[in-house]
Amino acid sequence: MSQEANSGYKDEALSAITKAGCQVGDVIRVTSKEKTYEGILIPRSETADSAHIVLKLKSGYNVGVHITPEIKIEKIGRGTKPSFASPPLPEQKPGLPKAVILSTGGTIASRVDYRTGAVRSALSASDLYGVVPELSDIARVETEIVFSIYSENLTQKHWTQLAQTVAEHIKKGSEGVVIAHGTDTMAYTAAALSFALQSLPVPVILVGAQRSSDRPSSDAATNLIAAVQAATRGPFAEVGLAMHETLSDTVIAVCRGTKVRKCHTSRRDTFKPVNATPLARVENNEVTMLTDDYQKRDAAKNLVLKPEFSEAVALVKFHPGLDPTVIDWHVERGCKGILLEGSGLGHVSKFCFDSISNAVTNGVVVALASQCIWGRVNMNVYDTGRDLLVRGVIPLEDMFPETALVKLMWVLGQTSDPEKAKKLLKTNVAGEFSPRTLPQELGAKGDELNGN
Amino acid sequence: MSQEANSGYKDEALSAITKAGCQVGDVIRVTSKEKTYEGILIPRSETADSAHIVLKLKSGYNVGVHITPEIKIEKIGRGTKPSFASPPLPEQKPGLPKAVILSTGGTIASRVDYRTGAVRSALSASDLYGVVPELSDIARVETEIVFSIYSENLTQKHWTQLAQTVAEHIKKGSEGVVIAHGTDTMAYTAAALSFALQSLPVPVILVGAQRSSDRPSSDAATNLIAAVQAATRGPFAEVGLAMHETLSDTVIAVCRGTKVRKCHTSRRDTFKPVNATPLARVENNEVTMLTDDYQKRDAAKNLVLKPEFSEAVALVKFHPGLDPTVIDWHVERGCKGILLEGSGLGHVSKFCFDSISNAVTNGVVVALASQCIWGRVNMNVYDTGRDLLVRGVIPLEDMFPETALVKLMWVLGQTSDPEKAKKLLKTNVAGEFSPRTLPQELGAKGDELNGN
Repeated sequence: MSQEANSGYKDEALSAITKAGCQVGDVIRVTSKEKTYEGILIPRSETADSAHIVLKLKSGYNVGVHITPEIKIEKIGRGTKPSFASPPLPEQKPGLPKAVILSTGGTIASRVDYRTGAVRSALSASDLYGVVPELSDIARVETEIVFSIYSENLTQKHWTQLAQTVAEHIKKGSEGVVIAHGTDTMAYTAAALSFALQSLPVPVILVGAQRSSDRPSSDAATNLIAAVQAATRGPFAEVGLAMHETLSDTVIAVCRGTKVRKCHTSRRDTFKPVNATPLARVENNEVTMLTDDYQKRDAAKNLVLKPEFSEAVALVKFHPGLDPTVIDWHVERGCKGILLEGSGLGHVSKFCFDSISNAVTNGVVVALASQCIWGRVNMNVYDTGRDLLVRGVIPLEDMFPETALVKLMWVLGQTSDPEKAKKLLKTNVAGEFSPRTLPQELGAKGDELNGN
Repeated sequence: MSQEANSGYKDEALSAITKAGCQVGDVIRVTSKEKTYEGILIPRSETADSAHIVLKLKSGYNVGVHITPEIKIEKIGRGTKPSFASPPLPEQKPGLPKAVILSTGGTIASRVDYRTGAVRSALSASDLYGVVPELSDIARVETEIVFSIYSENLTQKHWTQLAQTVAEHIKKGSEGVVIAHGTDTMAYTAAALSFALQSLPVPVILVGAQRSSDRPSSDAATNLIAAVQAATRGPFAEVGLAMHETLSDTVIAVCRGTKVRKCHTSRRDTFKPVNATPLARVENNEVTMLTDDYQKRDAAKNLVLKPEFSEAVALVKFHPGLDPTVIDWHVERGCKGILLEGSGLGHVSKFCFDSISNAVTNGVVVALASQCIWGRVNMNVYDTGRDLLVRGVIPLEDMFPETALVKLMWVLGQTSDPEKAKKLLKTNVAGEFSPRTLPQELGAKGDELNGN
């Protein structure tokens, strides 16, 4: 049995499954003193430890079993072995718009219920296209694997590379760009690309899946189809994020990249617009705009690429008992920007005031967004807010903390001058600030959490 | 003009208003080169700077005006001078239950639109009672000012003192406890008291206001009345938080102290239950339970007071580009517990793995909750989660980060033994863990954000 057939396993795990005559894809039974599991032996990533094997259970969930000398492993059947060969590409239909699907990794790029950093076991974008043949009726799709890593391991450098790749495809004539992305940090990347890709001629749509495509409840195919529709048929030209709007499989919302947040660990409608309505809805193969306030698609526009992000930016979330010296430490480490995640209308405790003054004196840009997530900071209502304004803290209106953090990283990637940075931070670059609504207008929104 | 009449003003601000013959409560006009403001001159807190005066505008909002030699100040009328004398207490009606209102500060304890650390300008709990005479038909209310400070300045020490004060009043025969609190950190305090006050015989209800009681849209009175009703008539004996359930002024929800979060900067329905329904609803003077799963009121129960909280606990919110050495720094500073606010089902980047291992090796309890807020962590689904479990990270199920942080502070206030701490962290002490729901049950919840 070659090591290749037991992808990712090594040392004691490899030796145990080899001894039992099993390979990846087999249905096996694992018996320990306490428990018996039956399921398909699935591959592991290259970085996994060597003490566990992983079974995909009938329930669709995976379980890791610790290999000990007492564990008994039996092969009880032959599963569908995961195939890594790309299916043949469907015929490209002339007359359809030209789209590109860029793949970065994540659940949407995984046919079995795991994500992996190993290129071998990730589906390529071309596989995605192959397994969702409906796409060939929507667009002439080109594909490219940009990365194949868990989204929690993406950094500012990856945002830069991704923005550059999008720009290249748009320059080559793509009429819509789709990015398959892990959902964990997809909203951060959506915000990053919103700032990095300005004056877009066509839509750039991020898409992910909360359930992998081998599970009956998978949202991978419906999300991807809607994303390609929005990218190629949407009349807007902004960075959007396409995912289930509700638990229904027929309605996909496209939210503005700067106004969307992952709000549930597992639900398919996990991405919620914050202080905004979605940009558009995709339903019954139709793209419907939900707002008049958007940048129009226009092939004649010249994309402006500003892909640099600073790595010297920190997030400090305020909470009772916060040690304010963490702010001093960030300043000593050479931090150029600090995003305070304040409470309520924009407050932190008075114990932080000296450290904040010290940061500002040292040329650090200190900005504040509210940990409430929804609503708008107003630092003129209470003393604490005014005390922070006097100390030079920049209030970030109705931006929620994650978008605010990404914007601060982007701003300090554009300029190292604190005054220029503050000015740019307060400029509405990509719809990150919504118009101010009057307090009395709130009533109309009923009990939805998403009012402004 | 005495300094007392111009409460809180000093140096140049005091001299400017004295020269203009104005005092706190006067309607004044302030004219600068750019702008003219008219409004009531309101007091400032003792910690305020001396360069500004503050006007309450007709809109109900306050504005701070920087005093410069060019500024012109005129008295144009006499406003209602804020009165700090307590109105007479209404007659105590025999036969009604005995309740206590503890006051800690915050908007609910402020008749003008500011909060202050100065005791003089805060309303006492007895004032609260006086201005809401309806209370005398509900209960025989006793009042006590415990603190009078902005809620963002409360720390673990205040939680301890507050828990001790609640316990004293219950021992003295209070049949319901109400705590008036600033909304910024009210959910943190609610969680803290939930852990500190075990085996409660009667309800303990936190209550706040998003709009101060001198504004027509104030929620102060309705929230306070509902809180006293829930505290004295509710059949449950837990720590709850009573605020507007919707934008309607007639429906107040009481949420469990460990399952509630401030989710909007300004709306009156800002507090949302997370991964739970509210415990009870107060409407038309009736308290209705919304769940069967609660601790029953029972005067015979002996309150168990465990009011200690550790100060050596840090929150590290994961984000792309997080500098993992911040974890090492917390360990070097003597931190005993770290709450990771991970992404999705419970992930942080692989760049943090070494620092996390180092923390655990040094006896630090490292636990994880999801920044999604809603849903449940499941660190067995993906490699990253399993990699963190192997390194000793404790997954905190469906607790959201703020409650998880407070629990970690409380746990490390009970024991310094990491193994005992981990065990206590995983024990359901105050309803902070909800029962696990099956994935297929999610569908029934429709598009509400608050499904489990």
